[in-house]
Amino acid sequence: MIPSTTLHVSGERFLATYVLSGPVEGARSRAEGICVEQTIEFPADLVPDDDIRRHVIGRVESFDVAGPETAVARISYAVETTGFELGQLLNVLFGNCSLYPGVRLTAVDLSPSLLRAFPGPRFGVPGLRRLLDAPTRPIFATALKPMGLSPEVLADIAATMARSGVDVIKDDHGLANQPFAPWEARVRACAAAVSKVNAVTGRRTLYMPSLNGPISEFHERARIARAAGAGGLLVLPGLTGMDSIRWLASDEAIGLPIMGHPAYLGANVASPVAGIEHGLMFGTFYRLAGADLTVFPSYGGRFSFTPDECRSIADACRRPMGSFPAIFPTPAGGMTLARVAEIRAFYGPDTALLVGGDLQRGDLAENTARIRAAVEERPA
Amino acid sequence: MIPSTTLHVSGERFLATYVLSGPVEGARSRAEGICVEQTIEFPADLVPDDDIRRHVIGRVESFDVAGPETAVARISYAVETTGFELGQLLNVLFGNCSLYPGVRLTAVDLSPSLLRAFPGPRFGVPGLRRLLDAPTRPIFATALKPMGLSPEVLADIAATMARSGVDVIKDDHGLANQPFAPWEARVRACAAAVSKVNAVTGRRTLYMPSLNGPISEFHERARIARAAGAGGLLVLPGLTGMDSIRWLASDEAIGLPIMGHPAYLGANVASPVAGIEHGLMFGTFYRLAGADLTVFPSYGGRFSFTPDECRSIADACRRPMGSFPAIFPTPAGGMTLARVAEIRAFYGPDTALLVGGDLQRGDLAENTARIRAAVEERPA
Repeated sequence: MIPSTTLHVSGERFLATYVLSGPVEGARSRAEGICVEQTIEFPADLVPDDDIRRHVIGRVESFDVAGPETAVARISYAVETTGFELGQLLNVLFGNCSLYPGVRLTAVDLSPSLLRAFPGPRFGVPGLRRLLDAPTRPIFATALKPMGLSPEVLADIAATMARSGVDVIKDDHGLANQPFAPWEARVRACAAAVSKVNAVTGRRTLYMPSLNGPISEFHERARIARAAGAGGLLVLPGLTGMDSIRWLASDEAIGLPIMGHPAYLGANVASPVAGIEHGLMFGTFYRLAGADLTVFPSYGGRFSFTPDECRSIADACRRPMGSFPAIFPTPAGGMTLARVAEIRAFYGPDTALLVGGDLQRGDLAENTARIRAAVEERPA
Repeated sequence: MIPSTTLHVSGERFLATYVLSGPVEGARSRAEGICVEQTIEFPADLVPDDDIRRHVIGRVESFDVAGPETAVARISYAVETTGFELGQLLNVLFGNCSLYPGVRLTAVDLSPSLLRAFPGPRFGVPGLRRLLDAPTRPIFATALKPMGLSPEVLADIAATMARSGVDVIKDDHGLANQPFAPWEARVRACAAAVSKVNAVTGRRTLYMPSLNGPISEFHERARIARAAGAGGLLVLPGLTGMDSIRWLASDEAIGLPIMGHPAYLGANVASPVAGIEHGLMFGTFYRLAGADLTVFPSYGGRFSFTPDECRSIADACRRPMGSFPAIFPTPAGGMTLARVAEIRAFYGPDTALLVGGDLQRGDLAENTARIRAAVEERPA
């Protein structure tokens, strides 16, 4: 038995919804197990009738049997368990119970003090629209590729893209620090090329280099990119951690829009009986960390997300969330000119359409101008 | 069509094995799709007959149908695609294809230059055995808990654990920077308490505080912990990124043993038709990053790993891997005194047994001494 403990807690709690798959008979006690696992991770019978029991252990707020093999538990946690830090918030929500069988985290209701603890998106939809001078239309994004080209050739491609009307040019998520195009040389060349075009066209194309490098150099690379004239930053939180987005978003001296990419995280959403719901993972968490755009593989491309899963991500980008602005869902993965109207109709105008390799099929400048025209068209 | 490109590449390649689930008719072309997706992510028909096609695009080295719904593809990649950085190595192995349906990464054969690019475990089994003066027996680890106790109470518990013979006391993975026990106050109190006991007993119990804080403070917290007398560091790469382990392992000035924890990563191994194989995820990758101990939920506890999955992790900790030492598999999650002999027989002596909350059931000092005696016993 541990000593009886008195704590100062606010009483404010946040909620997590878990879907428990498997025999419903044991589901209620599995939910109670999660309350313990995600907090004290300690035999509950060794805790006296004290404030740890009353406040620190999670609490089953509702429990419903939703099918022969499905139960839904809503569990609340004291905000203090998170220490108001993002990594620990995610840890309370899903750290150890990610290792349980048949547990999927499907929804989170954060409370006011938690939402205030994070800076959120610095730009979001309104801020990016101002930056890009694009008050209402969808944003047109593309990826600079392929890996293997030199900084000079990539910079030429970026210049053509900028000249022809792309709003956001992100590094392909696989461009890192390869000898073919070392990170700093590539970023300097591409940022300079895009800046030069912007000076001529008067447009404000944003070049967003990838920060998928050593985490020890993460902030320094962001600083170099900013000084070189980058217009934003691409972050792969599956590799650098979700909190790496928050690091940038909360740094006034960086102050650039952030695009989050889903690489390496797919298996976390893949199973209907494990992992994290799509909208929560790629919408809510990216937005909470401070991403202004969140890339995900759209339905109908070469990946596996369904229309409903994509809609869930888009909804999570937009629903009310403290004082955070909405952010841009950025469907990608097989987008083509032929699909612009359909994709726009599905996701609505507050969307960034990411057209990748297909842009370079035939004449890059022509293709780019055509998609720019398509995103500027008012839908019928 | 992109310009024809000449590259200087070494010709050295590394191998990844993917199990493709689903109709086998399309599996060969899915494997070829992965070769492109994980590298150039660009329409292959737009690449001329050049060095990008020859070297940068992945190559199917073997393809076998293993069952009516299962194919196995071994794909090689040029080492240069990784830029010799860990995040990008993981990205090439599984970044975008984590988002494909029915793809599981089951094995990796790294090549010499990649293994040389990373520092690997600074201590591993031989180094930790020297530090702990424990030449042959299993290591006895425990977790400091529960969340909600004050720094003083936690320090008292740590002192009792150290006095009674624990080798490694790690922070519970949920201890972060809660107001109940703010990170720095807690780490200073616990490190001091353990050091004081060590000075009396002559033993070398290692206290390993958790670095699950903001990534912006990650390195500074490691420095503070080291200065306060911590004997190692606990890292949760699901939250701070796998490269955060490498950051510490490669820093001479930190120079402490590192324990990796699996929190938040469970869904990546959960599905047999998605994600990453257990041994690869929690053995190979942690070891490659430089962890000296890797915690995972053992079979027979409250989690879901099978004996085979646990054995796969232990094997990955020990098989030959460049110049890296073996590391300690650290089975946890429901370990009890009653199971010490069984667990030891299953995993062998080069194992750290992590006994958690059960240690505090009844008399902590007695329980601890009993387990210490059990790990010192020569098996019959």
